[in-house]
Amino acid sequence: MKNDTFLRALARQPTAYTPVWLMRQAGRYLPEYKATRARAGSFLGLAKTPELCAQVALQPIERFDLDAAIVFSDILTIPDAMGLGLSFGEGEGPRFERPLRDEASIRALSVPDPTVELRYVLDAVRVTREALADRVPLIGFSGSPFTLACYMIEGGGSDDWRNVKALLHSRPELLHRVLEVNARAVSDYLNAQIDAGAQAVMLFDTWGGTLAYNDYEPFSLAYSKKVLGAVSRVPRILFTKGGNPWLAQMMASGADAIGLDWTSDPRHARKLAGGRVALQGNLDPAALFGPPERVREAARRVIDAFGRAPGHVFNLGHGVLQGTPIDSVAALVDEVRTYSRTRA
Amino acid sequence: MKNDTFLRALARQPTAYTPVWLMRQAGRYLPEYKATRARAGSFLGLAKTPELCAQVALQPIERFDLDAAIVFSDILTIPDAMGLGLSFGEGEGPRFERPLRDEASIRALSVPDPTVELRYVLDAVRVTREALADRVPLIGFSGSPFTLACYMIEGGGSDDWRNVKALLHSRPELLHRVLEVNARAVSDYLNAQIDAGAQAVMLFDTWGGTLAYNDYEPFSLAYSKKVLGAVSRVPRILFTKGGNPWLAQMMASGADAIGLDWTSDPRHARKLAGGRVALQGNLDPAALFGPPERVREAARRVIDAFGRAPGHVFNLGHGVLQGTPIDSVAALVDEVRTYSRTRA
Repeated sequence: MKNDTFLRALARQPTAYTPVWLMRQAGRYLPEYKATRARAGSFLGLAKTPELCAQVALQPIERFDLDAAIVFSDILTIPDAMGLGLSFGEGEGPRFERPLRDEASIRALSVPDPTVELRYVLDAVRVTREALADRVPLIGFSGSPFTLACYMIEGGGSDDWRNVKALLHSRPELLHRVLEVNARAVSDYLNAQIDAGAQAVMLFDTWGGTLAYNDYEPFSLAYSKKVLGAVSRVPRILFTKGGNPWLAQMMASGADAIGLDWTSDPRHARKLAGGRVALQGNLDPAALFGPPERVREAARRVIDAFGRAPGHVFNLGHGVLQGTPIDSVAALVDEVRTYSRTRA
Repeated sequence: MKNDTFLRALARQPTAYTPVWLMRQAGRYLPEYKATRARAGSFLGLAKTPELCAQVALQPIERFDLDAAIVFSDILTIPDAMGLGLSFGEGEGPRFERPLRDEASIRALSVPDPTVELRYVLDAVRVTREALADRVPLIGFSGSPFTLACYMIEGGGSDDWRNVKALLHSRPELLHRVLEVNARAVSDYLNAQIDAGAQAVMLFDTWGGTLAYNDYEPFSLAYSKKVLGAVSRVPRILFTKGGNPWLAQMMASGADAIGLDWTSDPRHARKLAGGRVALQGNLDPAALFGPPERVREAARRVIDAFGRAPGHVFNLGHGVLQGTPIDSVAALVDEVRTYSRTRA
C-alpha cells in the first residue's frame, strides 16, 4: 500500500497528516463524472457496470489526491437484490416498485446471495482495486439495516417516515423481522465485498437519527452491531446522520470509527471516544459553497477541534452536495493536508 | 382562568396532572378542520380570516379537552408582511415569490408594523381569546429569526438549505443583517400578539437543528435570545427541532420552557434543566399511528421519563401528522390526564 494513512488513522496510529476523503466524493459535482454517467445512460446503468464504477471511483482520487477511495455503488442495492425493484427518476430520489406494505411481503423476504444477485458490486470492487493498484485503500459500504428498512417500507424517501414508524408502533415484531433479514443480508454483502478486495467497510445509517431517543438502540443500533460483529476482518466505520444524541452508544458498538455529522462537537466526541475509537468527520458540506479562503479557514477549525491526537479521518458531515464548486474541494483537501502536517 | 394548569407548569409550579396540548393540534387530521378550510377556499384564505381562525383553534379544544389553545396561523406570516409573497401550492409546502437572492433585496428588508401588516393575526388572537372565554390559555407564536431566514433565502422548503448556508459561508454579514431585521420583526409581532391577548408565546426554530455545531449559537440562538428578552411579559417557550446538541445553551437563553423533539432523552433534559426551566414534549408524532393501547403505553413512558416534578407540559416532539387517527389523539390526551394524576 503506497498510502496507508487512512488505515493507520482508523487504527488510531500516529500519521504524518490527517487523512481525508469525502462521502459522495465521486458524483455530479464533477464534470468527468457527468460525462461517464451520460455514457452509461442512467445512474443504475452506471452502478451496474463494474468498469464504469471503477472509472468514477478513481476520478476524485486523480483530481484531488485523496487518502481513500470508495466503491461506486448505492446504499440500496440489497433491497433491489431482494426483488423490491429499485429505480431512480430523473432528478428524484430512489423508488421501490414493490415496497413492503403488508405482513405477507415481510414474511416472504429472504437474504440474497451477494455472489449471485449482487455480483456486479463485487465485480466493481475487484475492478476498482485493480485500477487503484494499491495507491490508496478501497472502502466498501452498505446502508444500515434500519436505513434499508426505511426505504423498503416507505417505498422511497420521506420527510417523516410515517409508514416505517406506523409499523414500529403498531407491529414492532414485523419491523424486527425486516431488520433481522437486513442485518444478515448486509453482513453477507459486506463480507463478500471484503472477499472481493474492500479494505475497510462503512455502514451508512442515514435515517437512524429520525428515531425517538428510546427507539434508536433497539431498532437501529442493535442491528448495526450485528453487522459490525460479522465483518471484523477489516476496519469498520459506523455513521448515523443525526446520531449526536447516541454517540456514546455508537462508540460501544464494536465499530473501529464513528462518523460524525456537522451537528456534533468534535471536542465533545473526542472526550467521549477517549482514544478507544477513531472519529471521522465533520465539516458541513454546505461550507464548500463559500470562497476557497473561507473553506480553508473552516478546514483548519475542524482540524483544531479534533486535535492531532491519533484517530481522526477528515471528512464532511454528509455527502458532497450537487453544485459544489470544484475549487472549494481542491482547497479543502490541500488545506487539510498542509495544515494538519504543521500541527503534527 | 378556568384551567391554568398549562401556565402553572410553565412557571414550574405543582399541578394536579400534567397539562397537554399538541403542536399543530388544529389541522388536516380533523374532519371539522377540513370542512372549515374547504369553506375558506385555501390555507391562506383561512389564516387571514380571524373568525375562521378562532373556529379552527377551538375545534381540538372542544374535541379533546386540551389544556392550551394556540392561535391558528403560520410561522411565515412575517416574511409575507415584508413583501416576499407567500403562497402554498396544493399538497406542497410554502413558497415565496420574491426570495432574498441578492444583496439589494437584503438591504431593502425592513421591519413590518404588525398592527398594520399583520393585523389579521392580531384580530385572530382577539377573536380566539373571546371565543375561549378564559377556558384555557391562548399561545401566540412565530417562526424564529433563523427559521424565517431559511425560507426567505431559499424561497421554500429544502433538504439541505444550501442557499442559506452558501450565504452563511460566503457573506455571513448579510445573513446577520437578515437575522437582525427578523429578530426585531418577531419581537414586535409577538409583543403585538401579547397586546391582543396571547397569554404565552412560542418560538418555532424548525430549522436551527440543521446548523453546524458551532453555527447554531451565532446564527440561530443569539437571535432567538433577542426576541425572548423582548417579550418577557408572558411565559416564553423555545423549540428547536434537532436542538438536542444545544439543550444546555437553549436553557440559558431566557426562555421559561424548552420544547424537546423526540430524539431528546427526557431524563437527560431534566437533569440539564435542574428545575430552572420547564420542559415541553416529546412523544414522536408517528407514535400516534399505533393502536390506542400502544399510544397509552407510549404516553405513560413519556410521563415516567419526565417524572412528575413541576415543570412538564406534555406535547409531541413536533406537529401532529396528517392522517393521524383521531382515536389515537383522544387516547393520548385521556391517558396523559388520568395517568399523570395517579403519579402526582
